[in-house]
Amino acid sequence: MKTVFKELKRKLGEENVLTNEADRALFSYDAAFGEKILPDVVVFPKTKDELGYVIRLMNENNIPVVTRGAGTNLSGGTVPVAGGCVIVMTKMNKILEINENDLYAVVEAGVVTKQLADEVEKRGLFYPPDPGSMNISTIGGNIAENAGGLRGLKYGVTKDYVMGVRLFDIEGNDVKGGGKTVKLVTGFNIPGLMVGSEGLLGIIYEVVLKLVPKPKAAKSLLVEYDSILDACNTVSEIIASKILPSTLELLDNFTIRAVEDSEKIDLPINADALLLIEVDGHPAVVEDDYLLVKKICEKNNGRVKVAANSAERDKLWTARRKALSCLARLKPTLILEDATVPRSKIPEMMKAIQDISKKYDITIGTFGHAGDGNLHPTILTDKRDKEEFQRVEKAIDEIFEKAILLEGTLSGEHGVGLLKAKYMEMEVGKGTLNFMQKLKNGVDPNNMLNPHKMGL
Amino acid sequence: MKTVFKELKRKLGEENVLTNEADRALFSYDAAFGEKILPDVVVFPKTKDELGYVIRLMNENNIPVVTRGAGTNLSGGTVPVAGGCVIVMTKMNKILEINENDLYAVVEAGVVTKQLADEVEKRGLFYPPDPGSMNISTIGGNIAENAGGLRGLKYGVTKDYVMGVRLFDIEGNDVKGGGKTVKLVTGFNIPGLMVGSEGLLGIIYEVVLKLVPKPKAAKSLLVEYDSILDACNTVSEIIASKILPSTLELLDNFTIRAVEDSEKIDLPINADALLLIEVDGHPAVVEDDYLLVKKICEKNNGRVKVAANSAERDKLWTARRKALSCLARLKPTLILEDATVPRSKIPEMMKAIQDISKKYDITIGTFGHAGDGNLHPTILTDKRDKEEFQRVEKAIDEIFEKAILLEGTLSGEHGVGLLKAKYMEMEVGKGTLNFMQKLKNGVDPNNMLNPHKMGL
Ligand SMILES: Cc1cc2nc3c(=O)[nH]c(=O)nc-3n(C[C@H](O)[C@H](O)[C@H](O)COP(=O)(O)OP(=O)(O)OC[C@H]3O[C@@H](n4cnc5c(N)ncnc54)[C@H](O)[C@@H]3O)c2cc1C
Ligand SMILES: Cc1cc2nc3c(=O)[nH]c(=O)nc-3n(C[C@H](O)[C@H](O)[C@H](O)COP(=O)(O)OP(=O)(O)OC[C@H]3O[C@@H](n4cnc5c(N)ncnc54)[C@H](O)[C@@H]3O)c2cc1C
Repeated sequence: MKTVFKELKRKLGEENVLTNEADRALFSYDAAFGEKILPDVVVFPKTKDELGYVIRLMNENNIPVVTRGAGTNLSGGTVPVAGGCVIVMTKMNKILEINENDLYAVVEAGVVTKQLADEVEKRGLFYPPDPGSMNISTIGGNIAENAGGLRGLKYGVTKDYVMGVRLFDIEGNDVKGGGKTVKLVTGFNIPGLMVGSEGLLGIIYEVVLKLVPKPKAAKSLLVEYDSILDACNTVSEIIASKILPSTLELLDNFTIRAVEDSEKIDLPINADALLLIEVDGHPAVVEDDYLLVKKICEKNNGRVKVAANSAERDKLWTARRKALSCLARLKPTLILEDATVPRSKIPEMMKAIQDISKKYDITIGTFGHAGDGNLHPTILTDKRDKEEFQRVEKAIDEIFEKAILLEGTLSGEHGVGLLKAKYMEMEVGKGTLNFMQKLKNGVDPNNMLNPHKMGL
Repeated sequence: MKTVFKELKRKLGEENVLTNEADRALFSYDAAFGEKILPDVVVFPKTKDELGYVIRLMNENNIPVVTRGAGTNLSGGTVPVAGGCVIVMTKMNKILEINENDLYAVVEAGVVTKQLADEVEKRGLFYPPDPGSMNISTIGGNIAENAGGLRGLKYGVTKDYVMGVRLFDIEGNDVKGGGKTVKLVTGFNIPGLMVGSEGLLGIIYEVVLKLVPKPKAAKSLLVEYDSILDACNTVSEIIASKILPSTLELLDNFTIRAVEDSEKIDLPINADALLLIEVDGHPAVVEDDYLLVKKICEKNNGRVKVAANSAERDKLWTARRKALSCLARLKPTLILEDATVPRSKIPEMMKAIQDISKKYDITIGTFGHAGDGNLHPTILTDKRDKEEFQRVEKAIDEIFEKAILLEGTLSGEHGVGLLKAKYMEMEVGKGTLNFMQKLKNGVDPNNMLNPHKMGL
């Protein structure tokens, strides 16, 4: 190991290779998880050549590799459970090209999502995927988790924007998938495969992303409800009426209070639920959609307020983006779930969450991307309270069972990582796990790339 | 082999197992290619159980399997080069569900594209991918080739509509990827992997497809040009002006004449090129986009005619859909290329095709999805004329080199199959081929699934 460290320092520079314990400890956890298993070494490659060099060196020395963007994932995906080398991609952070004629951007994998979104917007273009973490998350992490965001309903998620990827496989082969054309079918769909691959199949270093024209107009609505089930029915009816708002987010009373307590932005703390809705596009479309959405909200007993200016609009999005961190402050342990159902089943799923919360007498705050069928029931507890924690675990099992019964999924956007591995079989079955294992064995026969994640 | 045939007939019924030579010969070729290598047996499973049974039986007996939809692919993808068993999916052709609230359809893989599109349209919904072959192509074949269509520019291609797949791997494991929710990240992105997999990784039997609301209005334009380069410049300018028409197709003079000769639909046979353009969506958007498109066309010396009614509109799409078959009548051998470039480079690519045609003194008719950067330079020749054919092959090499030089690809939509295998390395490099081989080995170690395609 010592000579490997020396080699790394020689090639990457002392400052880009961390070996002392205090430094390494910072890379033992992510936003969900801290296992206190330290990596043996942490490296920050700055170029493609350095990255390829690191990978080949690790592979020759049988040292496992965990790729890390900003470490904001919520499933334990970057915890180095087998020790080894954490490769941090944040110094490969150049925007290489923004092509305004052909509507694409080429970026290194370590570029921060927000940085790209801002650069693109300056040119009248739009990169829609906006996870709540976009101020720090990286494009590579977004792809490897297939991150969603607040605009998924109309604009889709990260996978809908990946035109091309460049990556190294574990042997250090330089692999190219997709490219700069909107259509391309030479060989397997490697960009598609890398989406949601959670660092298990290869290390992405460069990406071609699709851009779209910036919508010309938008209108943001805050809708208050005395009953969260009315809010959920509104969501289903909007989708069934074939309108696609760009955003359709839900906050329950518990979440509203948590955000208001911390942010003081005048949220209606007595509302049982809020919907945050945005419609965008051509001004005529915005007006038509707005009127129809308003009608559906009111029919379901919602009180509609329109954001009068961009300050008011920003307030709404702050409320939503801060939801998770405000909830996290309330109790020592926060368990954030990610159950997702077909959108018409949102009312039924919400009802089930309420029942489960009562049945096990636990605190669940719920918010999320309701328009995508993607709720985040968030359980506030204290891991040290063994008795309560047993109830919490039963509640989680029931939430998953219900989501699957409703033809939904365990995870809409947070991925499997360590946290969801044990539930995988329930959703996808043995044959699928077997197929995934064969894919993994094919490209990484010695299980050196992010080992033990997804149960692989 | 004899006992295997018997087993198959017992399980599937005599009429669903073809073993005599004349019948088998019908499955030795596809729309591009006839190698006259006959499969040993051709089967038509009607249910998932029958399909699983066939696959397991073949695997146990080391008999290679080629999956076939309608056989309309243009790259030799269904030619059974190693003999074995052709599984024809056309009797697994049930539409299982069209969900109007959650905007998806569940279909068996053998459903004909047009049949789905029509059923969906009856419900005010829209399944956009419409390859020229949609009257007979199957959804399974569309996915395995990632088929594009006339509406790719605005609506994307098949990959943009695949939410879930069910498939059998070569061992007969039942594999589930994706599902009925718009967001889902439990495990690898198997739907993404199956897109463009050309029958090499598994046999898709059921699919969940995304549907979208039907656009409220549309306007179709026929634009005549005295110079094809003006038409190409129009295409680039439209894209750069950030309008996305639903359709933006090109026909050159040679193709116009070929269609008119055969169809007699009053096409302007003296035009050097035609653009067929459709804008769709909200009526206000259609009007705005139409005016802007018209202006750009006229600025580039185009003469714009608007289809006055649906009969006129249908005429336009007939012209485009018949292009390939009308060209095919003119000479014994037709070689259809599929080079695709970033859209701003369409004028340069068109110019190169003209120069190459002159340089090698060969006949090339060009049409295609210009708005996607996807041209179909179509070489008319006679394979028996050895001398001319050598020039043709050099011309093809130069077309590919040019496409790649312009940061494009060999194939925008037709796939690799047998025809493009030898060109793969030039585009993607050794590392990528290696990675593809490892994926293939992982899930199909004995190379039993559509062997020797894509060079694997
Ligand atoms: C406050 C907060 C809000 C959030 N909101 C959302 C949300 O709205 N929607 C959503 O989907 N998620 C959300 N997340 C989760 C998380 O931010 C996303 O999953 C994000 O995409 C992770 O990016 P990252 O750069 O932090 O990746 P990391 O956490 O560093 O890594 C995530 C995974 O990707 C792999 N990886 C990272 N980079 C690469 C690479 N270059 N090549 C190959 N593999 C790589 C890692 O190995 C790991 O498995 C939120 C998280 C927080 C803390
Ligand atoms: C006149 C004409 C016009 C065309 N226009 C277009 C166009 O506009 N855009 C375009 O993209 N293509 C076009 N094509 C090409 C072709 O129609 C498409 O590739 C189509 O998707 C093939 O569908 P199919 O059912 O005929 O598949 P097949 O040709 O039978 O099979 C194609 C490939 O898919 C695999 N496959 C088929 N079914 C399955 C399954 N269930 N599971 C796994 N693998 C499977 C096969 O093994 C093979 O590799 C055209 C072809 C013709 C003849």
